[in-house]
Amino acid sequence: MPTHRRARSQEAKRQRAEDLLDAARELAARATGVRHLTLAAVTDAAGLHPSAIRRYFDSKEELLLELAEREWADWREDVLRRAALATAAGTRLGPEETADALTGSLLARPLLCDLFTHIPLSLEGEVPLERARRYKTLSLESVTAMSAALAGAGTMTLAQIGDLIAATAAQAAHAWQIAHPTATLALLYVQHPELSHSAYEFELRVTRLLRATARGLATAEPRELSPAPE
Amino acid sequence: MPTHRRARSQEAKRQRAEDLLDAARELAARATGVRHLTLAAVTDAAGLHPSAIRRYFDSKEELLLELAEREWADWREDVLRRAALATAAGTRLGPEETADALTGSLLARPLLCDLFTHIPLSLEGEVPLERARRYKTLSLESVTAMSAALAGAGTMTLAQIGDLIAATAAQAAHAWQIAHPTATLALLYVQHPELSHSAYEFELRVTRLLRATARGLATAEPRELSPAPE
Repeated sequence: MPTHRRARSQEAKRQRAEDLLDAARELAARATGVRHLTLAAVTDAAGLHPSAIRRYFDSKEELLLELAEREWADWREDVLRRAALATAAGTRLGPEETADALTGSLLARPLLCDLFTHIPLSLEGEVPLERARRYKTLSLESVTAMSAALAGAGTMTLAQIGDLIAATAAQAAHAWQIAHPTATLALLYVQHPELSHSAYEFELRVTRLLRATARGLATAEPRELSPAPE
Repeated sequence: MPTHRRARSQEAKRQRAEDLLDAARELAARATGVRHLTLAAVTDAAGLHPSAIRRYFDSKEELLLELAEREWADWREDVLRRAALATAAGTRLGPEETADALTGSLLARPLLCDLFTHIPLSLEGEVPLERARRYKTLSLESVTAMSAALAGAGTMTLAQIGDLIAATAAQAAHAWQIAHPTATLALLYVQHPELSHSAYEFELRVTRLLRATARGLATAEPRELSPAPE
């Protein structure tokens, strides 16, 4: 029964791909993120021969972009859940609560904080066009769904929340890299704690900055916007 | 006269190092930043043999960190100049003007916007500890000088401006990478303009977000800050 056998082999292939994604997730969590991640380490951790990975992913970038898509979906679902809970409790989210819903759910996903640096730097631009199109479409759909849910549950507008989501991703991305130094840099921080202050207040700083951004976005800007004078 | 000869050779060595830094700067401006920059391309552009670079820089990271230090100093001087101009004109910078002074002078330095992604990701952690210490010390001194100048020329506090500088670096870093896609991604944006919107409003978005952040920071937060609930 070739049909049955093909189905089983497809199933086994899907399982292998999941094993590789799990291995990458675990390696990123143990090391300082995906910064030094290699496909060889991923296949090794998944118990596969190095050459086997090409059957599942064409490149490291493609594997990490797959992880990014799943993390985006998880972030979106968490934000939607928080918006629904607020509505069920009969509370309207103000600017700071809207920021907290986004920041709290993103900080709970360190891998996504890390990937938000790598996505525009080296992931979405290094995969085939069709793969990039799929990633872009899915992430924009998530932004749209999150914006609609938070606008429905609170006082900020869709446009303000769109800006806030972009700001949240950027701040968390940058702060995460600073908060996860290499061994050399970590040693420097031990020797010179005065140089480390921004590295170890990661969550507080991101929370504080995004609350401020949300408060500011909710304060309408009276005049027409032109870029800051250079 | 060996002393004289040594002095001339030191002078020649310094000049060569400058040539290499200039070549790296030019290559970064022509390509999509330092993303794909190699030491081989830098030595080639400077007219040197590939093996010669090790006499001037131990690694690509060290060369780029040297560029980063100079860009930091230029950014600081530009901000100090803007603060002095405002004081001379008898105007007090409000939160939005303070944001504009930082954002406008940073956006005029695309190489620094680009480097702000690479510094915490791969530069400061990959050089010897002593080199990282020098970079950290200089950049913190710049933050201190910029904060003092802007606090003296306007209405924001030192702490608020410290947060605003961190926010400015993070937003500009993230937005710069998005606004400078690879050839594949640029083609995708031509085919699907609806996927490109955040890529091509780089300066407007960064300016708008940082003005909002400054407005929000200037609005005192009444309650004690705890991280956003995860």
